[in-house]
Amino acid sequence: MKGELRFVGAVDRVEGEETEIVIYPEFCPALKGIENYSHLIVLYWFHQRDTPEERRVLQVIPKRHPGAPLVGVFASRSPTRPNPIGMCVVELIKVEDCRLRVKGMDAAEGSPIVDIKPYLPRADSIPGAKAPDWMAHGPST
Amino acid sequence: MKGELRFVGAVDRVEGEETEIVIYPEFCPALKGIENYSHLIVLYWFHQRDTPEERRVLQVIPKRHPGAPLVGVFASRSPTRPNPIGMCVVELIKVEDCRLRVKGMDAAEGSPIVDIKPYLPRADSIPGAKAPDWMAHGPST
Repeated sequence: MKGELRFVGAVDRVEGEETEIVIYPEFCPALKGIENYSHLIVLYWFHQRDTPEERRVLQVIPKRHPGAPLVGVFASRSPTRPNPIGMCVVELIKVEDCRLRVKGMDAAEGSPIVDIKPYLPRADSIPGAKAPDWMAHGPST
Repeated sequence: MKGELRFVGAVDRVEGEETEIVIYPEFCPALKGIENYSHLIVLYWFHQRDTPEERRVLQVIPKRHPGAPLVGVFASRSPTRPNPIGMCVVELIKVEDCRLRVKGMDAAEGSPIVDIKPYLPRADSIPGAKAPDWMAHGPST
């Protein structure tokens, strides 16, 4: 059972903490009104991990987190996963034509964009959510 | 430019606020350690919207939010979008074998599961994120 994704844009440029996303012209009308949100959820494709071998890996030791044990990929934010989709909550800095300037996105230049959704704190913000101790060390994901 | 998804499970049962997700046996090892998180991000497939016609729609008036204007689908959580992927933050109630019992998932029975990620408040929780006024009325997404 499979689904087909069409990439709607790409990460065009990474400059320090800021990232420029370009949305392809045919999908541009889907951005109408996006400037009214302070934060967005960006789903992108880990294109460098889209190989049959990587997509078969189901458990990893998350390298960036000192002391992390062997965990399932669904219990980690590793880019290695059956469907190599990355998810980032980003701050929206600027919208201009078909370009979004965002802050806090952890994706390589050239990564295809799968979807963009508005961040809704009522649904998406759980400040007290619990994660294991090893997740508190190293980067935020 | 396209990507291929393999569905890793499905929404098996919806009972009031709780939902039971079954992960297919071949992907079950990817759940190792997931019980150490209180909340998860579930990506699923709006299979009922996976038609060429629905996937061409780029702007909608979000029906469930009284007073909502016409907006781009990237500025809405509508299930109608170029890639019909849904995203929910859910509370993890129980893990048993290849089954997850979760609370707060807004997906129909039979919906394919695309990915599961741990919810990490350091990265994912933005309590003060701003959304337009019309989003404050009606359901949380």
